[in-house]
Amino acid sequence: MDSETFNCNLEELFHTKIPITGDMRISIARYDGKSLALEAPLEPNVNDKGTAFGGSLFSLLVLSGWGLLHLKLREAGINADVVIHKSSATYILPVTDTIRARCALPGTPDHERFIRDVRSRRRGTIQLTASILVGTRTAVEFAGTYAAKATQG
Amino acid sequence: MDSETFNCNLEELFHTKIPITGDMRISIARYDGKSLALEAPLEPNVNDKGTAFGGSLFSLLVLSGWGLLHLKLREAGINADVVIHKSSATYILPVTDTIRARCALPGTPDHERFIRDVRSRRRGTIQLTASILVGTRTAVEFAGTYAAKATQG
Repeated sequence: MDSETFNCNLEELFHTKIPITGDMRISIARYDGKSLALEAPLEPNVNDKGTAFGGSLFSLLVLSGWGLLHLKLREAGINADVVIHKSSATYILPVTDTIRARCALPGTPDHERFIRDVRSRRRGTIQLTASILVGTRTAVEFAGTYAAKATQG
Repeated sequence: MDSETFNCNLEELFHTKIPITGDMRISIARYDGKSLALEAPLEPNVNDKGTAFGGSLFSLLVLSGWGLLHLKLREAGINADVVIHKSSATYILPVTDTIRARCALPGTPDHERFIRDVRSRRRGTIQLTASILVGTRTAVEFAGTYAAKATQG
């Protein structure tokens, strides 16, 4: 499958398997094999101040990393469950329009070690960073440690 | 107003001003003046593994702190906007049933300083910890730094 097909499958996976992502109206904005960008409109994710709710911002950030690992593992022919283990987030600016989160793979050695560990040892961990931009400014910075465990099939 | 009235107002505030909390079916489980417990059923917050989605867990945690500060400020007669500034979360165990998050006030000096700062300087920050329990075991640990800014009225 090409990247476009993976894209559509991921959005369907989000909405069918993690139903709150449908309520948040999260969509795949872009996937280029090295980074994944997600989007959601402000309206279903608004808070009492008319800006984006911190829980929704976090959801897009954690899913941008989760989705990127899911796609990279599938591309490597590995079925694995991916979970978030630790996270930190710093909220710098309010988000007043469409929420855009982006996660990029770290350097090749980290990514290759992760894939190799899940393939050979059936488990691996990796740290990813992701961010939400408002224009060209960082609104939210996120770091997450994810763990993957190979599954049957 | 007594604690019960504050409770009802907070749940209404969540659902009307932060609409995704209605989709998550977040409710106030308990408020005793020193801690706030929130609940949500698993079903709307489930993930691909049949356990609670990390973004929903985070939302309940961040709101347990936010709601607690909102109530304490209102009890002190202060109208203020409260925002999350920094957060960290560690996911220890999967949550396979009703999600229960609880945030308790830190020691009296920290809490009093926060209220005093918002009253006198119109701004204050405070660090809170919150957790999600599965039975008696901690499933998710959360720490958040919140900032409050007094508003007119």
